[in-house]
Amino acid sequence: MAIEVISIGNELLSGSVLNTNVAIMGQRFLSHGFAIDRVTLLPDDFSLLKEGIKEAMRRSAYVITTGGLGPTGDDLTRDVIAELFQRPLICDRDVAEDLIKRFTSNFSTLQNQTKVPQGSTVLYNPIGTAPGFILTHKKSTLIALPGVSMQMEAMLSSVVPYLEKSCPKNFYSTSLYLCLLVEEQVDPFLRTLEKEYSGLQIGICPSLGVLALFVRAPNITTLNRVVEKITQSFSSYLFSTVSKRIEERIQEWMIAHKKSLVCAESCTGGHLSARLTAISGASSYFLGGVVSYSNSLKISLLHVSPESLRSYGAVSREVVIEMAQGALALADADYSLAISGIAGPCGGSDDKPVGTVWGAIATKKETFSGKICAQKGARREIVNEYSTTFLFSILWRYLQYNIKPFHDSY
Amino acid sequence: MAIEVISIGNELLSGSVLNTNVAIMGQRFLSHGFAIDRVTLLPDDFSLLKEGIKEAMRRSAYVITTGGLGPTGDDLTRDVIAELFQRPLICDRDVAEDLIKRFTSNFSTLQNQTKVPQGSTVLYNPIGTAPGFILTHKKSTLIALPGVSMQMEAMLSSVVPYLEKSCPKNFYSTSLYLCLLVEEQVDPFLRTLEKEYSGLQIGICPSLGVLALFVRAPNITTLNRVVEKITQSFSSYLFSTVSKRIEERIQEWMIAHKKSLVCAESCTGGHLSARLTAISGASSYFLGGVVSYSNSLKISLLHVSPESLRSYGAVSREVVIEMAQGALALADADYSLAISGIAGPCGGSDDKPVGTVWGAIATKKETFSGKICAQKGARREIVNEYSTTFLFSILWRYLQYNIKPFHDSY
Repeated sequence: MAIEVISIGNELLSGSVLNTNVAIMGQRFLSHGFAIDRVTLLPDDFSLLKEGIKEAMRRSAYVITTGGLGPTGDDLTRDVIAELFQRPLICDRDVAEDLIKRFTSNFSTLQNQTKVPQGSTVLYNPIGTAPGFILTHKKSTLIALPGVSMQMEAMLSSVVPYLEKSCPKNFYSTSLYLCLLVEEQVDPFLRTLEKEYSGLQIGICPSLGVLALFVRAPNITTLNRVVEKITQSFSSYLFSTVSKRIEERIQEWMIAHKKSLVCAESCTGGHLSARLTAISGASSYFLGGVVSYSNSLKISLLHVSPESLRSYGAVSREVVIEMAQGALALADADYSLAISGIAGPCGGSDDKPVGTVWGAIATKKETFSGKICAQKGARREIVNEYSTTFLFSILWRYLQYNIKPFHDSY
Repeated sequence: MAIEVISIGNELLSGSVLNTNVAIMGQRFLSHGFAIDRVTLLPDDFSLLKEGIKEAMRRSAYVITTGGLGPTGDDLTRDVIAELFQRPLICDRDVAEDLIKRFTSNFSTLQNQTKVPQGSTVLYNPIGTAPGFILTHKKSTLIALPGVSMQMEAMLSSVVPYLEKSCPKNFYSTSLYLCLLVEEQVDPFLRTLEKEYSGLQIGICPSLGVLALFVRAPNITTLNRVVEKITQSFSSYLFSTVSKRIEERIQEWMIAHKKSLVCAESCTGGHLSARLTAISGASSYFLGGVVSYSNSLKISLLHVSPESLRSYGAVSREVVIEMAQGALALADADYSLAISGIAGPCGGSDDKPVGTVWGAIATKKETFSGKICAQKGARREIVNEYSTTFLFSILWRYLQYNIKPFHDSY
């Protein structure tokens, strides 16, 4: 095998911390034509770590460890590696100078952080205190990185060029992201493609309203042809080849067309706005919005009529239309989104079970509205995430292809 | 080793999907006194899967696989297991009946989903189509679960009782969550405790304003004593033993004291509200708020004075105070939170670099304000996440212990 990762830390196994490092690294590597072949999560245990690293070094050309380089007592990686490869830990003068410069006052507690195994190449940590290092043993290379994601990610800027110099690129790949489709609607077509092109692999991964396709081809010609065929078949559903965030496409469109957006949220409670503003540059088109979680704010800020709330309830087509129109008027925006639903686990009824969500899109000329079908029995965060993606998807198709929102059956 | 997990899927290795299953499973097991000892991520590759499962079955008493049970061409787990243990796949009549009942119209495409290895115990999937199963081979037990988190999680309700019957509980554990502290402030004390109590292990995991401590003790007496000592030492920083979401404590306090909260956000763009409303029951105290991303909404909805915006800029103590007071007035709430900053990567200046964030907390009597120190050079989402946690932390300490917000140095 080529590249293997060992993620270290009890907190990963106990589930207290999500292992985001593998995802960050996997994505970055993929864009350079490398793939992670195997990942092992190991606890902060000297002998298990020693055994695990040894085993991986026998199996793979590159072994990347993350974690266990910090200054506290449960950080063992440096010592394990020193013992395993019989390389004493020595103080790196450049690392020491850098740490003194950045952490003058705390330097005494950081002495240990200046040490790396003898004969290794140091990888500077621009953010934290723990340096990484690269060490070659027999035919394998060990790359040790810190476990804190932000630090690990920053140091990939040194790791990627190193791999590019020494590790052969053996495939070409891309991702394709589709909205409003389910696995069964694309799978048969993809399997036909796999039969047609030898060496082609297409993985499908559904996640709350987005279908991600991962295409790996043995050469660039095959990759381009396959992407073209998929694009032809699913044109108006295919929103990106780089990101699963459909809101990025909304942002691009809005900025290119000099339009503005506001929103009014009830059940999603800020999540919809947060997804829009998570993208740098959102302030160029997104004016903001109202989290009208209570009926009083729906009335006072969005001018929803108390009569509609009484007659139809906050989760209804009538109210969500008034919310969208009220939001549009707040700031003289070109487009508005509104959402109101029952995210659960409480608050459902026979008439309006958990997962009932109404959405609306308003422009200065017209307002579209409809029910958003979240998954039955879904958890609170899933109802909100799915509903938000759904609303973004139909807005994007409206902007991009003039496909009327809520008029299709999905 | 006792329990080992194999997570299956190219999408996990390519980083397109976060492996949340391990975290979900790890947390659930921990609360029952079981620990996951090792995790391996493997690709959708027949021979690598076969080899990986075989190796794990030799090493561990319980091997749990997740993923690869779906209906599409890249789902191989069922076939790998059938071949590895020479157990032909047979149609389970109860599973078939259940699938017919739930998915009548699509049943023809689901025929394959009724199959399980001969002699295995079926685990019903209440949400999706793929059944799981338990199979014993020599001294080891294999538990196969689907990879879709929601389905996997639902099926743990069958797995946990099975483990409780057959797998010995070998430790007692708890988590402790602290706010506003960094690793170095607690580590020396914890290492002293480890020396004092034999068999005690304490892991520390810092994450954006929260420090999680994972305590594992050989018996319940030791666990209780250690928790008591940590509690005494860090009393007003220790906010939970069950969840890293400090906003849960704010919600408890607000509901218990019949108080209400509103908020006004700029840089966090909805994230602060979204974190509050992610908790079921938030509507009992959280009235909502304004995402005043643009200056125009700051003026029209929160009545921030255009003069303050001109003189001090949107990211300033003056403006954040007016935002907090404006939010409070929106809905006659008891408390309000306001935040305004430069989340980056653009928009920074020498005077106000990326990461400059101002926060305010207003009540009907007084308003507190101050600078929130986000990490230098941090990414957009980290600035927002950290700042939100910081603001929640000082609000919680104010509510719980009457510690004045922004008056400490952290």
